[in-house]
Amino acid sequence: MDRLTCDTLLSEVLAARRAVVDRSPLIQCITNRVVPQVTADVLLAVGASPAMVDTVPEAGEFAAVASGVLVNVGTVDDATGAAMRAAVAAANGPWVLDPVAVGALKYRTALACELLDAGPAAVRGNASEIRALAGDGPGGRGVDTVDDVASALPAAKSLAGRSGAVVGVSGAADLIVAADGRGVRVHAGHPLLTRVIGTGCALGALVAAYLSAWEDPFVAVVAAHAHTGAAGGVAGGRASGPGSFAVAWIDALYSLDDAALAAHCRFEPLGEGA
Amino acid sequence: MDRLTCDTLLSEVLAARRAVVDRSPLIQCITNRVVPQVTADVLLAVGASPAMVDTVPEAGEFAAVASGVLVNVGTVDDATGAAMRAAVAAANGPWVLDPVAVGALKYRTALACELLDAGPAAVRGNASEIRALAGDGPGGRGVDTVDDVASALPAAKSLAGRSGAVVGVSGAADLIVAADGRGVRVHAGHPLLTRVIGTGCALGALVAAYLSAWEDPFVAVVAAHAHTGAAGGVAGGRASGPGSFAVAWIDALYSLDDAALAAHCRFEPLGEGA
Amino acid sequence: MDRLTCDTLLSEVLAARRAVVDRSPLIQCITNRVVPQVTADVLLAVGASPAMVDTVPEAGEFAAVASGVLVNVGTVDDATGAAMRAAVAAANGPWVLDPVAVGALKYRTALACELLDAGPAAVRGNASEIRALAGDGPGGRGVDTVDDVASALPAAKSLAGRSGAVVGVSGAADLIVAADGRGVRVHAGHPLLTRVIGTGCALGALVAAYLSAWEDPFVAVVAAHAHTGAAGGVAGGRASGPGSFAVAWIDALYSLDDAALAAHCRFEPLGEGA
Repeated sequence: MDRLTCDTLLSEVLAARRAVVDRSPLIQCITNRVVPQVTADVLLAVGASPAMVDTVPEAGEFAAVASGVLVNVGTVDDATGAAMRAAVAAANGPWVLDPVAVGALKYRTALACELLDAGPAAVRGNASEIRALAGDGPGGRGVDTVDDVASALPAAKSLAGRSGAVVGVSGAADLIVAADGRGVRVHAGHPLLTRVIGTGCALGALVAAYLSAWEDPFVAVVAAHAHTGAAGGVAGGRASGPGSFAVAWIDALYSLDDAALAAHCRFEPLGEGA
Repeated sequence: MDRLTCDTLLSEVLAARRAVVDRSPLIQCITNRVVPQVTADVLLAVGASPAMVDTVPEAGEFAAVASGVLVNVGTVDDATGAAMRAAVAAANGPWVLDPVAVGALKYRTALACELLDAGPAAVRGNASEIRALAGDGPGGRGVDTVDDVASALPAAKSLAGRSGAVVGVSGAADLIVAADGRGVRVHAGHPLLTRVIGTGCALGALVAAYLSAWEDPFVAVVAAHAHTGAAGGVAGGRASGPGSFAVAWIDALYSLDDAALAAHCRFEPLGEGA
Repeated sequence: MDRLTCDTLLSEVLAARRAVVDRSPLIQCITNRVVPQVTADVLLAVGASPAMVDTVPEAGEFAAVASGVLVNVGTVDDATGAAMRAAVAAANGPWVLDPVAVGALKYRTALACELLDAGPAAVRGNASEIRALAGDGPGGRGVDTVDDVASALPAAKSLAGRSGAVVGVSGAADLIVAADGRGVRVHAGHPLLTRVIGTGCALGALVAAYLSAWEDPFVAVVAAHAHTGAAGGVAGGRASGPGSFAVAWIDALYSLDDAALAAHCRFEPLGEGA
């Protein structure tokens, strides 16, 4: 992806940003018990509509009318699993799998592998989670360095090729790859994003919002990461710690304009051999 | 309700505000999985005491000692429903029904209709939810315009008349009607209240707090809406987005004095034919 | 504990603070449904890693690898109880019991008493909860005055002696006692800490983080209380209400240096007869 292509990508990202605002997609989140509030606030901030319909009696019925669905395995038991299965079976729009801590715990790893077979439009996780889901490494948790993310490229490509999903790997620089061979590194963000709970989980919900508002899934996933990271960059300049950073990040997600997004993220093409 | 009556209403609202601080009512919330933290913070900010006792083994025992109870059907399954039934059966104080997204999903609609028959002191929702609960329209979700709220007036009157509950309809202007024919529009609030998750759900908890601290339920419900909306007006002047708005709103709920409340809300009588 | 001993205690507290940052302990929280987000944010702010693995299929497996575990009975049912039992049975690191509202509700009181027999490294609660767990008084809830905390001293000593756990009593001044007879009052904090939900529950998680990073459990529990309270003191000087206080508190938990900690807390020895 050369300079011209990256400029084109930026134009498409900005257009996708406007599409989310214009369409206000209704995003159903079946997520973990820790982050529903921040996830809903993030969706509202970017102009989407959150709906945390995550119970067995309702998850499937709602997925049929939602614009998009997020499935996040951060806290799972039999009821959560049943709600997720019902939702992805009934989903009319695109759905996203967030394999939180997959590889580190048996129950969720089995559930995530089963959900992967149901065909998500995108998978978003950190390097160790993506490696574990691709069957490459034991999985784990925590913050991944640039090198960790780079080392997850083969796993991300393999996972994208096998599942057809766009795969996003979050880290110091994010990595996005599609089954059709497209790939890019998104340089954006701020270290304090890793000191606020739910920023990654909320990014999964944003991926679902962008996918449901923009036709090209690769661009949609890139745009969600760029929006999240650029808002982090803006917030980093205003914060004196993770508390004020979290507040400024929500404000920036809401008010980020084209110039600020372009100024706070950079796309790096993945070479053929990368 | 003429000018004099609206002035009297304001006096009573201010007195109810002081009663909440003086009595610090203990409010049990059986609410959805998304908003317990913000709901508790709102109750603490206004001087009430939150208690999120929402499980089957404990909900009934606690309702017998709580000052008031909120029942919010935003995420419901069989266990939640059982806890709600136990709480409203045992409640010694007034309880409030918040019919989140009723009309849009079968399971919660049936549950909310059953709970309505158990006699809440107040029902609080948006226009489409109130219409659905009144059997007038398919229900739904989202932000209601002034016109939507106005169109819900017949449903709100019908619901109040049938159930005996004070009915509050949230929107660009709120509508409050009582079974005895009293009714008022509360003009207050700020558009960013709709871009922060849980502001409406927390209002439901405030309604329970005001009902348990003030004898006249119509005034109590009006006061909860006025307090919430006026704090939103104050916060709107300090915010640069939904993140800083949420923070300023909690601060304003806490520090709102009589002058600020009076300056940031206006009561409009409902005419006989309205 | 004389002046010299209190100076020594401060040195150890500051060393424990650095150990938490250096070791970044992985803290599993099985906590109530209200506070997981703020609890995780607090752990991240002080340099620890939160993991809210609280379901029956996973709680035991994870406890075996976590650095420490928090068990908080704020919202409990049969599934929560089973997850807690599995976690404390499998825990490799120290674990903490937070007996929220024990004494006021039968189900959680029985569960907390059972968990106490399983040998927590520390118990943290308010005066009425500690009294109830010690079998001294009916328990309850709410904010305890200095006198209430003082009146809980016999119960705290009895509980520490019987269980071997370090016992922390939160209030206007905190009280920490160990089974070996050591005891201290920690004067720190700010009244707004009681107007933000989850500050006490998050303190329980901090206690687990400090216990897993520092060998002497008495010092670890004191340090967690000092860190929490001193950050409250810093935040109180910056806040205009509970909303901005909550933000400033997280910032202060993150950035608190030795001088600020020492300036915003004071240790008072417990006399022999105290």
